[in-house]
Amino acid sequence: MNEGVEWALHSCVNLCFIPGETVTAKRLAAFYELPTAYLNKQLQALTRAGILSSVSGPKGGFQLARQPEKITLLDIVVAIDGADDAFRCTEILKAGPGADPKADYRLTCLVSKSMRAAEITYRRELAGKTIADIVAEVEETYPATADNTRRWFANLKA
Amino acid sequence: MNEGVEWALHSCVNLCFIPGETVTAKRLAAFYELPTAYLNKQLQALTRAGILSSVSGPKGGFQLARQPEKITLLDIVVAIDGADDAFRCTEILKAGPGADPKADYRLTCLVSKSMRAAEITYRRELAGKTIADIVAEVEETYPATADNTRRWFANLKA
Repeated sequence: MNEGVEWALHSCVNLCFIPGETVTAKRLAAFYELPTAYLNKQLQALTRAGILSSVSGPKGGFQLARQPEKITLLDIVVAIDGADDAFRCTEILKAGPGADPKADYRLTCLVSKSMRAAEITYRRELAGKTIADIVAEVEETYPATADNTRRWFANLKA
Repeated sequence: MNEGVEWALHSCVNLCFIPGETVTAKRLAAFYELPTAYLNKQLQALTRAGILSSVSGPKGGFQLARQPEKITLLDIVVAIDGADDAFRCTEILKAGPGADPKADYRLTCLVSKSMRAAEITYRRELAGKTIADIVAEVEETYPATADNTRRWFANLKA
């Protein structure tokens, strides 16, 4: 999985701690000492997916495009890493003896079905957890984090 | 995910249809018109993982090293694709303000925990299904497959 998924998840959580603010890629990258250009690429992907909105101009930057309750971990994984399953069925049964050339073995092959069933449990788990859930867990487990994050961004020179 | 996972899963299922036989990589590859050398690499990985056993000599080849009830889909995925999670936590929190240099953020980071929880559901699903289950499903859904496979291997010239 693209390491940008980790960056994107943490950046979305950080944006929750500074609500209403528009934050540049440079500032978001500075928080974790990430390369700005490469984080910016991930933030653009989140924007294309409707997770962030991007404001241009001197006060420009990124902010959440919707409530964190409406952003699931799966939304972010798909935005950054694509929607493909880890297991890709190449329909090798098509080359097997007695294969039906009209069959879609991605649907009928029982190996493929079992692998997809596992992917579905994974996706269901990620779809059942939102950025708001993570923020609530952080506030519960590490109560100083929200204030510290706000203060850090407030003190950061542009 | 390595496409060898698909090949390995189907090859293990095929070996169940010709029990007691030792089958060369060349014959197993011919069944799905796969490249022998590359399938052989996957079969060697299954052998190192104790899923297949390899017999050398003129009558040599591969056979299942244990009962298909004892071979889970997860065993095969891990043998071919490795044991790493799809999401790799690089602990970007370590570079964040106020980070604890002694912390293992793979364990304490709530983003990392949520991603790992999803991976666990995926692995649990794969670990709950065996090659014997797949074979039983094939026999139920496609009753001619077992005999056809046996006949095909019997008729195949070395």
